[in-house]
Amino acid sequence: MSSQPTALFALDLTGTFAFGLNGALTAVRAARLDVVGVVVLGLITAMGGGFIRDVLIDSLPPATLLDWRYYTLATLGGLIAFALSRHLRRLERAIDVLDAVGLSTFAVIGASKALDAGLGVAPSILLGVITAVGGGTIRDTLVGRIPTVLRTGLYAIPALVGSALTVLTVETGVYGLPAALGAAAACFLIRALGVRYGLNAPEPPETRGRRDSGEAGA
Amino acid sequence: MSSQPTALFALDLTGTFAFGLNGALTAVRAARLDVVGVVVLGLITAMGGGFIRDVLIDSLPPATLLDWRYYTLATLGGLIAFALSRHLRRLERAIDVLDAVGLSTFAVIGASKALDAGLGVAPSILLGVITAVGGGTIRDTLVGRIPTVLRTGLYAIPALVGSALTVLTVETGVYGLPAALGAAAACFLIRALGVRYGLNAPEPPETRGRRDSGEAGA
Amino acid sequence: MSSQPTALFALDLTGTFAFGLNGALTAVRAARLDVVGVVVLGLITAMGGGFIRDVLIDSLPPATLLDWRYYTLATLGGLIAFALSRHLRRLERAIDVLDAVGLSTFAVIGASKALDAGLGVAPSILLGVITAVGGGTIRDTLVGRIPTVLRTGLYAIPALVGSALTVLTVETGVYGLPAALGAAAACFLIRALGVRYGLNAPEPPETRGRRDSGEAGA
Repeated sequence: MSSQPTALFALDLTGTFAFGLNGALTAVRAARLDVVGVVVLGLITAMGGGFIRDVLIDSLPPATLLDWRYYTLATLGGLIAFALSRHLRRLERAIDVLDAVGLSTFAVIGASKALDAGLGVAPSILLGVITAVGGGTIRDTLVGRIPTVLRTGLYAIPALVGSALTVLTVETGVYGLPAALGAAAACFLIRALGVRYGLNAPEPPETRGRRDSGEAGA
Repeated sequence: MSSQPTALFALDLTGTFAFGLNGALTAVRAARLDVVGVVVLGLITAMGGGFIRDVLIDSLPPATLLDWRYYTLATLGGLIAFALSRHLRRLERAIDVLDAVGLSTFAVIGASKALDAGLGVAPSILLGVITAVGGGTIRDTLVGRIPTVLRTGLYAIPALVGSALTVLTVETGVYGLPAALGAAAACFLIRALGVRYGLNAPEPPETRGRRDSGEAGA
Repeated sequence: MSSQPTALFALDLTGTFAFGLNGALTAVRAARLDVVGVVVLGLITAMGGGFIRDVLIDSLPPATLLDWRYYTLATLGGLIAFALSRHLRRLERAIDVLDAVGLSTFAVIGASKALDAGLGVAPSILLGVITAVGGGTIRDTLVGRIPTVLRTGLYAIPALVGSALTVLTVETGVYGLPAALGAAAACFLIRALGVRYGLNAPEPPETRGRRDSGEAGA
C-alpha cells in the first residue's frame, strides 16, 4: 500500500460508496424502511467490513471512522438509494453489480492492509476475504436473510481469488495500481459470472435437486 | 468526562441498568426464554453498546467487563425482569421508556468517551450513535427482529441529537453535568415523542401507504 | 497457561476442530448450503469465539488468525462435515456432542487467556463464558435461529461452571493439565445432561406450560 497509497485509497472509497448504495437499496427492497433506516443500513454495509478488518489488525480507531470521506460517501450512497427507490425493479442488476464492486475492492484493500500490518501470507488472504464479505454479511443478518456468503460459494471464492492475487503480487514485488486493479477485476468477473449464470459450488449430496426451494427459503 | 467523572459514571450505570432490564423484558416477550436466557439477553443489551464503543476507540479490555458494577447491575436488571414477567402486558410502556433511557445515556457517554480518546467532532458524534443503538441492535438481531434502528428513523435521530449536543457542549467549553443531562434529556424526549405518536422519517416513495403491513412484518 | 502451554494449546485446537465440524453440520442441516457456505459457517463457528475473546483482551491480531493450525483444522472440520452430510440424520447426536466439546474447551481457554491478560476473577469468568458461547451464537444468528445460549440455560451455565473452575484452580495454584481437563469435563457433563434430559432453567411464570410451542418456534 505504501507504493500506491492514493490509488488504493481511491479504490477503497469506490468500494465504500458502492456498498453504501447497495446496502441502502437492499434495505428498501428487503424491509421497506424509512429514510434513516435506509441510510443506516447503507452505512453499516459500507463500513462494517472495514471495522472488522481494522479491529482484527489492531488498527484502531478504524480508518473509516476517522476519515470523513468514508462516512460521507456511504451516507451519500444511502441518500441516492432512497431517491432512486421508486425505480427499484429496474435496479435489481445494479444492486448485484454494486455488491460485486464492493466485494472486489474490499478484498484487495483488506489483503493489502493486512500485509502492511505485518500479517503473513495466509492470514492476509483470510483477512481480505473477511473484509470483503463482512459488510454484506452484517447487512443480510440485520434484515433477516441468510447471508450471501453462506448461500453461494461464488461469493467467498471470488473474494478469495482477489485477496490471494493481491498477496501474490505484493509478495513477488510486482504490486502497484495495475496489479491491484487486476486482482479486483478478477474477483469482480468471477462474482459477475456466478450471478449471471446462477453458478454454485457443489451442494451436499443429500440436498441435490432441492436447490430451488432452498434458495427460495433463504 | 474528566471534569465530571462521577456524574457521567452514574449516567452510564443508569443506562446499563435500563438496558439490562429492557433487554431481559424483550427476551421474555419475544422468545419466551428461561431465566438464564433472559439474563443473558439483558447482559448483551446492556453491555453490547459499550463493548463496540471501547473496541472502536481502542480502550480494551472494555470498561464494562472490568468494573463489576456494570455486569452486576445488568444482571440485576435481568433478574428483576424475570420476576416481573408475569405482568408483561402492563410493562409495554416501561420497555419503551427503559430503551429510551439507555439510548439517551449511552449516546452522551459514547460521545464523551470518544472525545476523551482524542477523536474529532464528527467521529465522536458517530461513535455516540453507535454506542447508543449498538446494544439494542444486537438484542433485536438475536431474537430475530429487524433492529429498531432500521425500522424507524426516530431511533437513530434522537441518538444523533444527544450525541451532537454532547460534542457541541464539550467543544464550546460549557460541558458538565447539566449539559450532559440536557443532551440526554433532548434525546429521550425526541425518542419518547416518536414512540408516543408513531412518528417516522419519510419512507421510500414506492412503499408509501404500506407502512402498517411493513411494520407488522418487521 | 504458561505452565502448560502445549496442553492448553491442544485443548484449544480440539475445540476449534469440534466447532468447525459442528458449525458446518449445522449449516447442512439448517440451510442446505453449498460446500463453500458449509466450510465458511464452520470457520465462523470455530473462530468466532476466539476472535471476540482476543478483541476483548486486546490480544490482536487474534491468535486464531495468525496460527495456520486453527483455520486449517476448522476448514478440515468443514470439509469432513460436507462429505458426511449424506448421513446427516445419524449425526444429530454428534452435532450436540461436538458443540459441547467446543463449549467446554473454549470456556477453559477463554478464562485462562483472560487471567494471563491480567483480568480479575469475575471478568475472567465472564470472558470464558463469552468465548465459549460466542461462536455458536454467531452460527445460530447467521442461519436465522434463536441462539442456543438464549433458548436454554443449560448452555451458559455449564460454560460458567467450566470457566469458574478454571479461574478457581489457577487462583488457588493447583492449575495444570488435570485441572484444565477437569474443568472442561465438568462443563461437558452438565451440558450433556442438559441435552439428554431436555433440562432447562426456570422459565418466566407467564409462559410455563407453553414450552413446547416456544421451542418449536425458536
